[in-house]
Amino acid sequence: MEKRLNRFRIVTDGKKFKKVFDLDDPGPKGLPNGMIKNEDLEKIDAGSIFSFGGKKYFVLPCSLQEYIMEFMQRKTQIVYPKEAGYIILNLDISPGKKVGEAGTGTGALTAVFSRAVGDKGSVYTFEKRKDFAEIIQRNLEPCWEYDNIHFHNHPLQEAELPGDFDAFFIDMKYPWEVLNIVKDSLKPGGRLGLLLPTTNQVTRIISTLQAEGYFINEISEILRRGYKPNPERFRPEDLMTGHTGYLIFACKIKNSEEGS
Amino acid sequence: MEKRLNRFRIVTDGKKFKKVFDLDDPGPKGLPNGMIKNEDLEKIDAGSIFSFGGKKYFVLPCSLQEYIMEFMQRKTQIVYPKEAGYIILNLDISPGKKVGEAGTGTGALTAVFSRAVGDKGSVYTFEKRKDFAEIIQRNLEPCWEYDNIHFHNHPLQEAELPGDFDAFFIDMKYPWEVLNIVKDSLKPGGRLGLLLPTTNQVTRIISTLQAEGYFINEISEILRRGYKPNPERFRPEDLMTGHTGYLIFACKIKNSEEGS
Amino acid sequence: MEKRLNRFRIVTDGKKFKKVFDLDDPGPKGLPNGMIKNEDLEKIDAGSIFSFGGKKYFVLPCSLQEYIMEFMQRKTQIVYPKEAGYIILNLDISPGKKVGEAGTGTGALTAVFSRAVGDKGSVYTFEKRKDFAEIIQRNLEPCWEYDNIHFHNHPLQEAELPGDFDAFFIDMKYPWEVLNIVKDSLKPGGRLGLLLPTTNQVTRIISTLQAEGYFINEISEILRRGYKPNPERFRPEDLMTGHTGYLIFACKIKNSEEGS
Amino acid sequence: MEKRLNRFRIVTDGKKFKKVFDLDDPGPKGLPNGMIKNEDLEKIDAGSIFSFGGKKYFVLPCSLQEYIMEFMQRKTQIVYPKEAGYIILNLDISPGKKVGEAGTGTGALTAVFSRAVGDKGSVYTFEKRKDFAEIIQRNLEPCWEYDNIHFHNHPLQEAELPGDFDAFFIDMKYPWEVLNIVKDSLKPGGRLGLLLPTTNQVTRIISTLQAEGYFINEISEILRRGYKPNPERFRPEDLMTGHTGYLIFACKIKNSEEGS
Repeated sequence: MEKRLNRFRIVTDGKKFKKVFDLDDPGPKGLPNGMIKNEDLEKIDAGSIFSFGGKKYFVLPCSLQEYIMEFMQRKTQIVYPKEAGYIILNLDISPGKKVGEAGTGTGALTAVFSRAVGDKGSVYTFEKRKDFAEIIQRNLEPCWEYDNIHFHNHPLQEAELPGDFDAFFIDMKYPWEVLNIVKDSLKPGGRLGLLLPTTNQVTRIISTLQAEGYFINEISEILRRGYKPNPERFRPEDLMTGHTGYLIFACKIKNSEEGS
Repeated sequence: MEKRLNRFRIVTDGKKFKKVFDLDDPGPKGLPNGMIKNEDLEKIDAGSIFSFGGKKYFVLPCSLQEYIMEFMQRKTQIVYPKEAGYIILNLDISPGKKVGEAGTGTGALTAVFSRAVGDKGSVYTFEKRKDFAEIIQRNLEPCWEYDNIHFHNHPLQEAELPGDFDAFFIDMKYPWEVLNIVKDSLKPGGRLGLLLPTTNQVTRIISTLQAEGYFINEISEILRRGYKPNPERFRPEDLMTGHTGYLIFACKIKNSEEGS
Repeated sequence: MEKRLNRFRIVTDGKKFKKVFDLDDPGPKGLPNGMIKNEDLEKIDAGSIFSFGGKKYFVLPCSLQEYIMEFMQRKTQIVYPKEAGYIILNLDISPGKKVGEAGTGTGALTAVFSRAVGDKGSVYTFEKRKDFAEIIQRNLEPCWEYDNIHFHNHPLQEAELPGDFDAFFIDMKYPWEVLNIVKDSLKPGGRLGLLLPTTNQVTRIISTLQAEGYFINEISEILRRGYKPNPERFRPEDLMTGHTGYLIFACKIKNSEEGS
Repeated sequence: MEKRLNRFRIVTDGKKFKKVFDLDDPGPKGLPNGMIKNEDLEKIDAGSIFSFGGKKYFVLPCSLQEYIMEFMQRKTQIVYPKEAGYIILNLDISPGKKVGEAGTGTGALTAVFSRAVGDKGSVYTFEKRKDFAEIIQRNLEPCWEYDNIHFHNHPLQEAELPGDFDAFFIDMKYPWEVLNIVKDSLKPGGRLGLLLPTTNQVTRIISTLQAEGYFINEISEILRRGYKPNPERFRPEDLMTGHTGYLIFACKIKNSEEGS
């Protein structure tokens, strides 16, 4: 993945302007004070300062997170870094794991999962919307180094899944519709995560999880508060994101009649 | 790592009682209503329910996060999951990367880094306190699958570091003392993260980072708000963690005199 | 009210110890390092330092808020200052207003309302629990300067209310049961406030308010984050209150068939 | 005050449109779908619904808070309701009290204080900026019912203050410049409040307060999180105010050499 993301650069003036550019796109790039040729930008090392039209810019390498936040095209609300990192730890996702995702959306979390499971792991992701396929593929193309993403452009309900998933994440409007399928696909003790924007969805999913015999580990909100990097006037930013969603984490509990 | 953490189990009654047990320790394990023999606990599959003394318990696999939070012995304040996941994404830590850590502490973040960089990556961690060595080794022992942790029991200042680190994390009381060493060790564009509990430390480190030519990406607080899993009375928990620390993320910018 | 609260003093060592004492109670008062006679404490001016047993204490006047938080006996969860002040402003409570309260509880908010409407205003408060009467009267006794509190120890449903209330606050478990009574008691445009701990109650009350023709002004949570007063190590407190309740504010809208 | 604010109306469609109109201004009022004549708006009772151009509007009475937030012209950042209510309670401001304010700004907090102390209390407010005088007077004119506001258009340092203030609030950039003057003006045990946007100001004021012998009661942030009033999709608003300022509350401690 790293090698592929190497083709992207962040260019910023350290103030308002911050943009991700794709060096594989030969066209000129727009800066606030004019267009810079792609071949000129290519010559500047990531991690250095350059002058253009009398103005100073920083050229930085582009992280996966920055690629997701600043470059990926969005069809839906994406999972933010404040939640994505917490999901990785709570689903215990690590190199070699087999992870499922119901609701690929724009592919943001898919890319994070792909990186976390590495070349020996795998990510099975399901998106029923046919019109999302093209954008998902375009978004994921620079993150596809490991060949570990299995993209299925149909509802999870139409899949035949073996029962050996380590973890599953559901980002769907009606997640209770797939809880039993997901449960069948998980190993005993396998981990389930959900992100839901409304309390109505949360109370309904809690009831369903309890009815289906999942063990609920925790329900959390993650809030990020940004600060202005001014050492003489240190203070939080005026505005912050007030809500993205509620995170629910659960474990599959084996039915007593099942063998081990 | 997974294989090694396999020896741990979470046993919980789904209410107040939740504990991590080490199956490699042959002694009996204390439950609220009596002692269970280790050999009896070993027979129960992770991800199932069992009855003991007329009471129902869940046995769950132990995630790295749960091992860190519930089992690691602490000499210092540890980095919490709400921050650890966000650090991984912001430092762009992924399989194969080379990461440094100044201030091993109890080894919590070291274990998270080790897992994220995988068998082709490496983590160099430095702890000057000689009396921390034993506890760090004991804490990390079950997380050492990859042989990718290089533990140095001396101050970072005494190390000779090549300049090829992808990322560095500093968890020290006086981080400004090592900013120049860390800068020399990072690749151009390499990422630096810090966690600092007080605003006085933050304002001082901002000034030093700016003076030493780092680019400051962001300063953030991450807050977690837990909710009670009761679908008829859904509400946040009464108490929450009010503060752990401020996160600062920066990039190394190459001095103009340096070659590429 | 001020004159009556004058009989209370806060005694604190500026660290862990902080207590409200009643000078009208002639018994000795317990300090961390011994008992001080009431007559000795009486001689110390509010707003001064004194030494007792070689230890320094501050004696401070007791505010209504401190009396409520530190001295009132509680039968139920009280309304905290972070919410009480916001309620006053949102219900537009001011000198001379006529205010209702369904669910007196311990009388904390009653005392705040009594002070805010002053000697020309009035507070009608209803508590159905007979066993709360004594504690409410004892709690409110030092706050009763204005003779503006009308305490009714029966359900609101049994009251005959004129339709001229400026504002009403409901702190009940099933507030939807009294919404129509409260609406009849309010002037057109009169303001209604509610504090509810669970989202299930909130969604139900929103539906009922909309069905009964109220206009919903806003729904809010108020969070307080305390900081340690250490200028060299400035930082938030480790723990904070994670939840008290959701505040709902609405206005009575006159039915079209009603006259003006 | 109430009588004067009676001339204002809130007109809202319950969605995006919400505006405060002054009925004393004879000009027509702009609604999203056209201009309504003032005489037509005057005929509609506060607390009712009316139709205009086929669209439904609510007409509501205007609270002091709404007048402040929606109608007052601003020269400076104003004190928000989430803080204003908390300040009233922490400074123990109530009918009959004598309150000082250093930094009138736009007069928002002045109006809240004026109402809280009522006709037997008084508010002394100081603003050094001569160019603020006109706007302050215009903003406060509808709130001047009690004749209890004493506006001084010069720095606090030029005032001669008696030592009998119950409470003082400072909203200035360099509050440490007036701490000793304010201390002389307060009764022993009198209460001081400050609102400061940056942590640098807070750490400096803590040091000065401690050096000048104040007792620091608490340092707090108040956060408000709004929710959407949708009972089927209940959730917080997407954006929230991330920061207004840090509140500091202290008590004057009498110097030991002072008499009682």
